Formats: sequence, structure tokens, C-alpha cells
Amino acid sequence: MSKGLPKRSEDYSLWYNELVKRADLAENSAVRGCMVIKPYGYSIWEKMQQQLDKMFKQTGHSNAYFPLFIPKSYLSKEASHVKGFAKECAVVTHYRLKGDESGKGVVVDPEAALEEELIVRPTSETVIWSTYKNWIQSYRDLPLLVNQWANVVRWEMRTRLFLRTAEFLWQEGHTAHETKEEAVEETLRMLDVYAEFAEKFMALPVIKGVKSENERFAGALDTYCIEAMMQDGKALQAGTSHFLGQNFAKAFDVKFATRSGGLDYVWGTSWGVSTRLMGALIMAHSDDNGLVLPPKLAPIQVVIIPIYKSEDELADIRRKAGELNTLFWDHGIATKFDDRDTHKPGWKFAEYELKGVPLRIAIGPRDLKNNTLELARRDTLSKSSVNLGEVDILSHIKDLLDEIQENIYHKAFKFRDEMTTEVDDWEEFTRLLEEKGGFLSAHWDGTPETEELIKEKTKATIRCVPLEGQKEDGSCIYSGKPSRGRVLFAKAY
Amino acid sequence: MSKGLPKRSEDYSLWYNELVKRADLAENSAVRGCMVIKPYGYSIWEKMQQQLDKMFKQTGHSNAYFPLFIPKSYLSKEASHVKGFAKECAVVTHYRLKGDESGKGVVVDPEAALEEELIVRPTSETVIWSTYKNWIQSYRDLPLLVNQWANVVRWEMRTRLFLRTAEFLWQEGHTAHETKEEAVEETLRMLDVYAEFAEKFMALPVIKGVKSENERFAGALDTYCIEAMMQDGKALQAGTSHFLGQNFAKAFDVKFATRSGGLDYVWGTSWGVSTRLMGALIMAHSDDNGLVLPPKLAPIQVVIIPIYKSEDELADIRRKAGELNTLFWDHGIATKFDDRDTHKPGWKFAEYELKGVPLRIAIGPRDLKNNTLELARRDTLSKSSVNLGEVDILSHIKDLLDEIQENIYHKAFKFRDEMTTEVDDWEEFTRLLEEKGGFLSAHWDGTPETEELIKEKTKATIRCVPLEGQKEDGSCIYSGKPSRGRVLFAKAY
Repeated sequence: MSKGLPKRSEDYSLWYNELVKRADLAENSAVRGCMVIKPYGYSIWEKMQQQLDKMFKQTGHSNAYFPLFIPKSYLSKEASHVKGFAKECAVVTHYRLKGDESGKGVVVDPEAALEEELIVRPTSETVIWSTYKNWIQSYRDLPLLVNQWANVVRWEMRTRLFLRTAEFLWQEGHTAHETKEEAVEETLRMLDVYAEFAEKFMALPVIKGVKSENERFAGALDTYCIEAMMQDGKALQAGTSHFLGQNFAKAFDVKFATRSGGLDYVWGTSWGVSTRLMGALIMAHSDDNGLVLPPKLAPIQVVIIPIYKSEDELADIRRKAGELNTLFWDHGIATKFDDRDTHKPGWKFAEYELKGVPLRIAIGPRDLKNNTLELARRDTLSKSSVNLGEVDILSHIKDLLDEIQENIYHKAFKFRDEMTTEVDDWEEFTRLLEEKGGFLSAHWDGTPETEELIKEKTKATIRCVPLEGQKEDGSCIYSGKPSRGRVLFAKAY
Repeated sequence: MSKGLPKRSEDYSLWYNELVKRADLAENSAVRGCMVIKPYGYSIWEKMQQQLDKMFKQTGHSNAYFPLFIPKSYLSKEASHVKGFAKECAVVTHYRLKGDESGKGVVVDPEAALEEELIVRPTSETVIWSTYKNWIQSYRDLPLLVNQWANVVRWEMRTRLFLRTAEFLWQEGHTAHETKEEAVEETLRMLDVYAEFAEKFMALPVIKGVKSENERFAGALDTYCIEAMMQDGKALQAGTSHFLGQNFAKAFDVKFATRSGGLDYVWGTSWGVSTRLMGALIMAHSDDNGLVLPPKLAPIQVVIIPIYKSEDELADIRRKAGELNTLFWDHGIATKFDDRDTHKPGWKFAEYELKGVPLRIAIGPRDLKNNTLELARRDTLSKSSVNLGEVDILSHIKDLLDEIQENIYHKAFKFRDEMTTEVDDWEEFTRLLEEKGGFLSAHWDGTPETEELIKEKTKATIRCVPLEGQKEDGSCIYSGKPSRGRVLFAKAY
């Protein structure tokens, strides 16, 4: 199955595209830029959703659902918001088709033009804040903590499976608060939730930071983000949390009666992660044999493959495998016993390697005789023989899954560490971007102009001003002007 | 809170609309025909989703995701399909906005017209079967059992919250099979899943049947359905399962290598339920005080309300309520202890009645002294005092929740029974439709013409030909021509 999967070192981009398709994660559809998420890919996304949803609820949020369509006029109400999204909007102009003259096809019925065009939501701030106006009257109605799981559309010109598609799936949280402080606190709380999810579940180390003005969400006062490093040395923004100030409250006239008897605009936040996380997960951990999935997000955590020549042998193995299968499931381990007779063991080994199943158990006649089994780890590709008389197999499997989860994280952490370079010289800066990539920690004078010039010359952008790490004064890597601290530059997805 | 909720007997339609809004289930949005599903309403839908999703997975289905947009030409490939949906399609014609001349608003950029218009999916058969063409080569790839949770758009002219909205949420299963028999079996299996869900979880008795040609899904050979009876005597179609034959396989050229070495078109099914189920749930059980929710779908199953005058009293009650809250949660009972001091107990009683919480516990100072609590059932509105020294409160609550679930079902069953009338005389038929409503079990000559005439004269349609019940010969209620069996007529949502 993995035959012919391109090598990362030869063509990282091709390797990614092929891996996404061959591991049955997603494929391009007939509609330009829209993907089909295949069952195996979707089952990973479902695991992400379930965990995130739990974390949102634990932090007090409820789900709701708002319309797919946004009246064109709504989009214009917040000036910088419309500027940010107008160029990539899918627009609904008609609501009916009719038979064409040939009688075989259909055409848009010109008589069914909408009075006001509708935009397919690229994000839902406008439609949600227009609703919040009716939900919020008093401080008693606050905070309002709502999340939505939905599809959104941004008409991107260059698309890439999971990373950049015209339609994608995501969640978008939209909250409203009494005070600026509470809204900022919420913005940072959700950033922490994203970081915790990335690190503990995706095994993906991330850097929390704040975006420069150039990279800020259209309509926000501050955009916080988590940034991750991919194996090709490019950064990937894995989630954002926006402090909206009172911008949308003002645009949609959302005021509340304050505790002190006054009337004030509400403070807002919004935050989201999307199916882009699938791209991050794939690119951060996988290898030339295929996917490497962290056990906590693997739809199949353990696969059991029988090695047999005769039906009698298979019958014996089935009994043993059946016992293990039941034992594992009883303890919450997602197990698959693949006893299909249409494929040989070697084919199955390659298939589950390609699909990133963390642990593989092989059982043959000799294993039955010796009361052993063969265990293979996907992350290290190492094999070991386990004697069932000596080892508590359930604990052993559990420990191994934990170990794999940690190992994948540490490997990614170490890689990111190696790919983060402190640099104070412009020549060195450009050379590193050419030759090594990764995060460059450098001084910046704080102006959008300098950031723009650096981007023009190197294609690198400021990924974020990290929240952690000490601030030190210095001179801008490009302009030499005074800098208040280092920021992270990188080429990015 | 329930003050002013209209009575069902006076204006059922107004009662429904007001209930949906006041119980915080949903509201109309600024976009014509599109609703906002509010957090409380969405939490009921989430419970439905979780249960259905589990049942789909238990029957071997996986989730996937297909594009929101369908190329216009795809819709035309299956002739009756396009005929059924062309008149209610939202059409995307452009992919960009630009600033208008005033500089304040935005207009559609005429230079960004799509080469081929895209339809916002009204259902996904076409885009899915165009994908299946690449997924299916051989009988080894079958059956293909896929489900999708998604939003769809049908531009309805008259809309009603949950029951008929331009955008709605649903699931759509799309399966492909080797043989006609397997596809029919799948169609009926999913019909059974829907019926089981309706009866066991929604406490909604349904009649399984097959649609007449007039009411068949556009593109199907047979449409099976579950039909329920609402309190105003109108029927509601709660779910459909379609046997597609080889129609879509032929339209999209989906062939497979058969076991015998030949090449044949694949057999298909599709099946779906939507947020319409929310409407059915509300209309079937609720009363003039508000919602009545079956415990299995209630986001809050038990609410605990403290009755107190002083802070000291509240502190004591909090201890007791806290114990119960923990005990119930530990045993999977969704409990809420509402100790807000901003609202009085009477207000809370009415609020949770309006929201359909199955069980209410009130605890006051005298209860603490006597080791008792007051229990109120939402379904019967009856109250009882429980002595905690005499009763195992956990078992008691569990038993009561089961009892309520059953009672709601039986009440609805009895109602439907009373509202189902066998009728053999046309005058009687029209009189019953005017005066009583409900299901009329009557003979029909099997022709679309007669069905159409009956609809014109009475507004009643054939809801289904029931799968169960004995077949008897007779004479058509309208034409007097021979009939092979009774069918169910009703006015319907």
C-alpha cells in the first residue's frame, strides 16, 4: 500500500498530498476547492470534535446554531471585517432553477433573484451579533458563552486538502461580557484550551502568542494564536482566539444595562479551530511509511492481525484474538481484529502502517504454542515479542499507548526546539530561512512597514509575539531600529 | 414565564410558535426562513444526534463529509431528481464582493461570476454518487455504508420553526449495495432504526409505511416513512428511507465488477431525519404550561430548587442538594441545582415547567427537619412528598424517569389510537377531516389521479400504505373502484 508514497525529503508537498489520499483521509471533489472528507479521515475529526466539545462545555459554553447565510448588508457593518472577507465570499443571488430550452438541463430562473444577496458565512460574527442584540438586555444576561460547530466558505484561490479549502468545517465560539477584563480573560482561557488540546491530544507542541497588526483577524483588537512547526520547517497557525473589544457590539448596537444603572456596549470574543488541525496532525508526525497518529486521536488504537496457513490455524487464532479484542474494548481501547481472508498479512501490515494505527499485534501458530504475541509500535517501527504468561497484557498495552503518545509529543517538541533559532543578523536571517527554515526568534521594530518589507524579501511573516519568555531590548533585525523584544518569524502554511 | 402562553385548544399554531420561542428552543433569524437554534433547543438536538449516531454506527455505518455545493449540471443528471428540487434551490453565482461607489457598502463583483453556478445542497445524492464512482470498483468495495451530518437548504416559501425552514440540519445516509435485495433490506433496516428511535427515545409512536407515487422522493423507486400524529390531529412525517434502485448509479455511471465476473450498476439507498424531529417532539407531548420532554432526551432530567428565607436556610439546603446532585450525576442523571438568588421559587417552578424538565425536587427548611423532599412530575403535574429515610431516592428517581418516559409514550399512543378512524363512506370521510382530523384508514384505488382529487377536495394526502396490518379488498372511498387494501389519509405538516 505504501509503495510509491513519495519521500518527505524529496518532495514534502507531494508526500503530504499523496498521504492524505492514500490513507483515505480526504480527496478533492468536483467542486473547485471543496474537499470530501472520507470516513477514516472523518473519524479522526470526530475524535477531535468530541474532545474539544467536552473542553468547551467544561469551561461553561453551550452549543447553538446560526444561519448559513448572511445578508450582504450585515457584512458591511463592521468596516475592517468586510474588508477582510469581501474578496473571498460565495454569493447566493437566486433561489430557483428552471428547465432550459432544450428541456434537458436547468438554468437559473432570472425571475427568482433575491432582493438582497446572501453571503455564505465565511465566519459568523455579524449574524451572531445581530442575534445577540435581542438576547442581551442586562448584565444578568452576561456572560453569554456560545459555540457553534459549522461549515464555512472562503473562496481561496490556491487550495490544499485540509490546510486551505474553499469550504471547511470548524467550530466558532462567540462570547459576550460585561467588562473588558472578562473578555480578555475569556480570550486567553480559550487560547489555553486550544494549547492544551494540541499538546495533550494531538501531541503537538505549540507556542502561544499574539499576532502583529498585519496578521490580526478582521474586526478584532487582538488576535491570539497557537503556532506549530511542521517537519518541513514551515509554521502552521493551529487556532486563534480574538479579543473583539466593543467593535461588533457597536456595529450591531448591542448594549446592556450595567450593574451601576448605566448603559454600555458589550465586550466580545471569538475563537476557532478547523479541519486545518487535520493537516497539522498529519504533517507534524507522519513519516515515509504513512500516518503516525497519537493514540488519543486514533480511531483504531490496536489492530490484531492473524498469521495463518490453514483454516484450523485461523480458528485457534480467532479464539485468542477474540479474547484480547473483548478485553481491550472492555477497557476502552479501540481495537480491530482484521481476519479478512481477502488480504495477506503483509498487505495488512503496510495498510495499518499507512493509516497510523499506534499498535499492531500479530498472532501466529507458534505464538499460540508459546503463549506469546508480536507487538509492533507505529511511532518507532520497533517490534517485540510478549510472553502472555509473564506480562499483564492489558496494562502493557495501556502503558505502551501512553508511551507512544508521549514519545510522539517529545519527538515533535525536540524537532521544534532544533528548528527554533535565535538570530540577530540579517544575512544570517535570510540564509537560515533559505537553508534551514523553522522559527527565527529575532528583534523587530514593531512597525507593519518593516514586517511587510521582511515578508516581501523572504516570504517569512511574524507568526506571533510569544506570550512566554523574557522581554529583552534590542535592535530590529531588518531596520536596526529599537525593539522591545523578540518575535517569531517563519514561512508558514 | 408561562403567563400568556396561548392555549392549544384556542390556537394550536400560535401555541406552537410561542412555545418554541419562550422555551428558548429557536427563533427566526434576519435571513428569511432561516432559524437560529438557541442553546437549550440545540442541547435537545444534540441528544437526538448522539443517540441516532450510535444507532447508525451499531448498524455498521461511518460518517463522512461531502461538499456543501453541487455543480448545477450534477443536479440535472437524474431527471426526476432535478424536477423535484429545481424550484427551491439557493444558487451561488459569484465568488467575490467589492466596495460600492459610496465606499461604505459592498456589491457583488460582476467580474467574479462562476463559470458554472453552484447549488447549495438540498440533499446530497448527486454529489455523493459522483464521488462513489471513484470509490467503487468491485463487489469487494460493497456495501458502502456512509452517513453525513450536515446542513441543507430548500427555499421554501412558507416556513415554520423546525417544521419547515429554508436551512435545516439533518443526517443523510447514502449506501451502495451489490444486489437489489440487500439495498431493500438496508432501506427497511434504517426505517426500523428510525421507528425505534422515535418510539424509545422520543416517546413518539409511529406508523411505518410506504409512500404513494405522488409523495415519493425525487429519484427513488420507493420511499418508506414513519408517520406520527400531532395533538391537533395533523400527521407529521418524521423520517424517510428511500430505495433508489439503480437510478443514481446509472445517472453517475457507478458500476462494479460482480462476483460472477460481470459488470453491473450498484443498488442504492438514502435515508434521513432532520431538525423537523424537534417540531414533532414539541407538538406531540407538550401542554398549555409548556414543553413536556421525554427523560431520555431531556438536557436537564431533574432540577432541584431550594425554598428558603434566610442565607442560613439556604446554606443547609445547599448541603443536602449538593449530596443529591452528586449522587444523581454519578449515576448518569442530568441534574441541575438552581440556587440563583435572582429569581423566586415560583418563577423557577414555572420556568422549568415551560422547559419540560421531567422531575422537579423542591427542598425547604421543613423538608430538612423531616428528612423529606417534594417531588413534582412534569408529565402529570402531580406532586408527592418523599421521606428519605424510607425510600432509596436514587432508585426512586430512576424508576420515576422510566415511568415518565413510558407514560408519555402511552399517552401519545392512546391519543393516536383515538385519532385513527376506519372509514368507508365519502361523506363521513370529509366530515371526519373537518371535525376530528387524525388518521383516516380508508380504501383507495391506487391511482395518483384519485389521490390528487381527494387532496384537492379535502387537503388530506395519503400519508402511507402501512407495512403492518392485514390487507383486505374493498372499494375506493372516493372513486368506488376496487382497492387492494386500506391506506392512511390525513392532513399533514
